Amino acid sequence: MSEIEPYRTLEQRYLLQSKWRSFRQDRVDIGNGRVIDYSYAEVPRAVFVVPLTQDGRVVLIRQYRYPVRDWVLEVPAGSLETPAEDPAATARRELQEEVGGECQELIHLARFYSSSAHLNLDSEIFLATGVRLGKAQLEETELIQLLILPAREALKLAQQGQISEGQSAYALLLAAPHILAREKDDWVK
Amino acid sequence: MSEIEPYRTLEQRYLLQSKWRSFRQDRVDIGNGRVIDYSYAEVPRAVFVVPLTQDGRVVLIRQYRYPVRDWVLEVPAGSLETPAEDPAATARRELQEEVGGECQELIHLARFYSSSAHLNLDSEIFLATGVRLGKAQLEETELIQLLILPAREALKLAQQGQISEGQSAYALLLAAPHILAREKDDWVK
Repeated sequence: MSEIEPYRTLEQRYLLQSKWRSFRQDRVDIGNGRVIDYSYAEVPRAVFVVPLTQDGRVVLIRQYRYPVRDWVLEVPAGSLETPAEDPAATARRELQEEVGGECQELIHLARFYSSSAHLNLDSEIFLATGVRLGKAQLEETELIQLLILPAREALKLAQQGQISEGQSAYALLLAAPHILAREKDDWVK
Repeated sequence: MSEIEPYRTLEQRYLLQSKWRSFRQDRVDIGNGRVIDYSYAEVPRAVFVVPLTQDGRVVLIRQYRYPVRDWVLEVPAGSLETPAEDPAATARRELQEEVGGECQELIHLARFYSSSAHLNLDSEIFLATGVRLGKAQLEETELIQLLILPAREALKLAQQGQISEGQSAYALLLAAPHILAREKDDWVK
């Protein structure tokens, strides 16, 4: 199987265009003389950060997401300000803004697509260790709330399929072996 | 924190409408007199199925995804034909179409959102056990290829963050303890 781009974009058409979310419907030559319309959403690259505090807790964010009309538990996440931004810098900024925290170490765990048939979202997952909780710039409101759980409890939620945001659940499951390897008797029984 | 729907849709507007992918831009009252435009993609509910064969292998699909301009490894997946379809029936159909297989047992592992800020995608994850490989109705082409790996090898790819499709990586990580618990000496060393 060839690694060459098998599709050729004949025309790129925007139905909506903005910095944070655009909708495209392209004319695409998919080979053998076949031409189709392919529609998808275009969004900036993003980071997902699992924040592990110095005393072995994980910080999650509970918020309301309009597209699914539901409340979801997530890890701190955010978009790169520009395509050239270093994702590690984005991760540190999100940690600062959403958790009010700084970390000792930022460990890169994976790069992934969230839903590659519908969306071009292309993200990095980090584990932030030694997080010191500060004053979040994010105002806790009825629509957003920090949840600080013992690490094992957060991992258990993910392992049982109870974190309904798949991106965050995946980040927690990837971080699990790293978190468990760091366990200290003084913070996790 | 209230579980009441905090947002109120004032107007729903479609920029593109089709059975498999629509783009909306709604006028939404987000409380305290604030009204915003919220755009997102609307797609049918879906299933993701981890197929575990009778002899302890996992079936993955390698295919090209235009929105990310990349080749990705995925587990078999597909959309519900109608909102009322039983997701277990969708899972069996996808297994038949994409892998040509039938399974002994279908174990429900989780329900999840793929990217709830951008997309309403709402999916179920199943582990299919005792899968007998048959003749796939899906034609293997340059754009799509079946990859049949020893289960431990597939799980290792997911644990190392090497499955770039997050939905499929999440499904594999959730299935991992179930697969490892089923290990027989005759199929996995």
